[in-house]
Amino acid sequence: MKFQIIAQRGAARAGLLELPHGTVETPAFMPVGTLATVKAVLPHELEELGARMILNNAFHLYLRPGTEVVEAAGGLHRFENWPRPILTDSGGFQVFSLAKLRKITDEGVHFKSPIDGSPHFFTPESVIAIEEKLGPDVAMVLDDVVRNPATYDEAAQAMRRSVSWAGRASAARTRADQAVFGIVQGGLHPELRIESAQATVDIGFDGYAIGGLSVGEKPEEMYPIVDVCCEVLPTAQPRYLMGVGTPRDLREAVARGVDMFDCVIPTRLARHSTAVTEAGNLNLLNARFKHDFGPLDPECECPTCRQYSRAYLHHLCKCGEILAPRLITYHNLYFYQALMRKLRQEIINEGCS
Amino acid sequence: MKFQIIAQRGAARAGLLELPHGTVETPAFMPVGTLATVKAVLPHELEELGARMILNNAFHLYLRPGTEVVEAAGGLHRFENWPRPILTDSGGFQVFSLAKLRKITDEGVHFKSPIDGSPHFFTPESVIAIEEKLGPDVAMVLDDVVRNPATYDEAAQAMRRSVSWAGRASAARTRADQAVFGIVQGGLHPELRIESAQATVDIGFDGYAIGGLSVGEKPEEMYPIVDVCCEVLPTAQPRYLMGVGTPRDLREAVARGVDMFDCVIPTRLARHSTAVTEAGNLNLLNARFKHDFGPLDPECECPTCRQYSRAYLHHLCKCGEILAPRLITYHNLYFYQALMRKLRQEIINEGCS
Repeated sequence: MKFQIIAQRGAARAGLLELPHGTVETPAFMPVGTLATVKAVLPHELEELGARMILNNAFHLYLRPGTEVVEAAGGLHRFENWPRPILTDSGGFQVFSLAKLRKITDEGVHFKSPIDGSPHFFTPESVIAIEEKLGPDVAMVLDDVVRNPATYDEAAQAMRRSVSWAGRASAARTRADQAVFGIVQGGLHPELRIESAQATVDIGFDGYAIGGLSVGEKPEEMYPIVDVCCEVLPTAQPRYLMGVGTPRDLREAVARGVDMFDCVIPTRLARHSTAVTEAGNLNLLNARFKHDFGPLDPECECPTCRQYSRAYLHHLCKCGEILAPRLITYHNLYFYQALMRKLRQEIINEGCS
Repeated sequence: MKFQIIAQRGAARAGLLELPHGTVETPAFMPVGTLATVKAVLPHELEELGARMILNNAFHLYLRPGTEVVEAAGGLHRFENWPRPILTDSGGFQVFSLAKLRKITDEGVHFKSPIDGSPHFFTPESVIAIEEKLGPDVAMVLDDVVRNPATYDEAAQAMRRSVSWAGRASAARTRADQAVFGIVQGGLHPELRIESAQATVDIGFDGYAIGGLSVGEKPEEMYPIVDVCCEVLPTAQPRYLMGVGTPRDLREAVARGVDMFDCVIPTRLARHSTAVTEAGNLNLLNARFKHDFGPLDPECECPTCRQYSRAYLHHLCKCGEILAPRLITYHNLYFYQALMRKLRQEIINEGCS
């Protein structure tokens, strides 16, 4: 993996992230493809709309179809027919969302499958082994995530466990062709974030993620934590803000020096009949769209906006037709990619290289 | 509308059906797009996989989004972004499937909307008026359909009512640019089919459909009825076997002189995880596909078969992912179109022109 910063504007950076399956222009938004599919969208459409890297989830894929199936298929890229870079989330966040179905110890996390109730045990080492079999370009370490707000002690305990696990994950690596990113935790406590960032950087990873945000706090609470983390993290390596966010969140975090993002917002909203537009979110189930023959987003150049009316999309949503999530997901992801291209171009045009 | 037969092989015909929105090579299979969308497939994909004419349903579109919405959008072609020929079913079959929600008289049919229970009244004239507003290339008359097997008296009453309604529909036409097809009824009673075909031809339509089949009877009961109808119907006009069928049904009916088909089988099976292949139907939920990394149908050239494994499709089906119906619908429709191209080519190659 190679990361090159080609322009800066204040704290914001425009870069090139070279990975085994291709180069990604940063800042970049990775569409979420939890189960080895970005819901409703085919790989060639993701390429068309400008996505260059997607996220899959090791936790979900370990459960279904099973790590060994993906490995036997020749890895994630071949399994899902996506030839470009892939990052796998470790599943830390998903495991810790299981509530009563899991029990954390310093050794790892015991959990029951939400699919069939079967018992499983994840350790930092076993998750790296899973990710090495899945074969993404970038693997995330297993971390211990707390909901915000968490008390200082809760956040400190989870953060220190995350650091310990990051060290074990790093030691467990066997694939030289796979990048691994560490994850900064510490809730909304700046001093814990600083401790976490320094300790994680001391272990040494190919890139660094900021985790545990957009999990209960307000944007105004999130942005200062992003600031604190970016101040401590090394400038020469990519920074990835996990699970964030709204178009506003992306603008604010790019300005603070974040290079990579993933979020379910554009794909999930689409499946709830909601389009992200310059003018804000539009719920297409709203009756006011029944006779609205204008484009979904007059500012947008995507095929959905060029070829279909709001009235048609309203009709599809009302009838529960599969074309509704298809067309709206395409638009929402196009909108996110166009936003990232615009932010990148602003850094290049107005910054210094 | 212009219909030209370019080759014949026994009773089978290869033709060209010229319509306001383009020319369709026959025999032709029309994918079903009930609510102004072929479920899970976009128009440009329908074109790619070889579809040249689709079916929409006047009954469903009258209820949702409403005839006036489609009319205000500029008609069906613009509303759903499909520039090629469209045929609208009248909704006769759908209305008569409503059971307790409808009451038929000689005047027309009173029914309650299955969406909201609101009362509606369809007549042969009102359905033609709806279809003229929707704007398909071909409109079907309202008919009275009975399930097979029906007694002679039931089938005779429904058939004679259908003939009477066909006459009223024909008299109600006002658009010279829209073709209208009459529909032959008469259940499984050959003498009623002959009476229906002769009476419907006496009224005079642009083409003739064979209705009331594949509604309860066995294939062995259906094919002789198709024979009887094709013997009476004029050779110079297109013949359309409504709502049929399996690949075998299509082969058998083409051999008997049918030119046009529609059926929900390829699209509906796909949404139930089932692929139509040369080797028969495959239910991709079956556990034997979990580790099957071969193509869905080794005989097929479609993108689904070229790019994805059975193991991946099995995984998508198990997880309820939208890509499952997308990829399988594409394959099934491609399979149907490839079959029609093959049957047509056989008539041209081995028949006489």
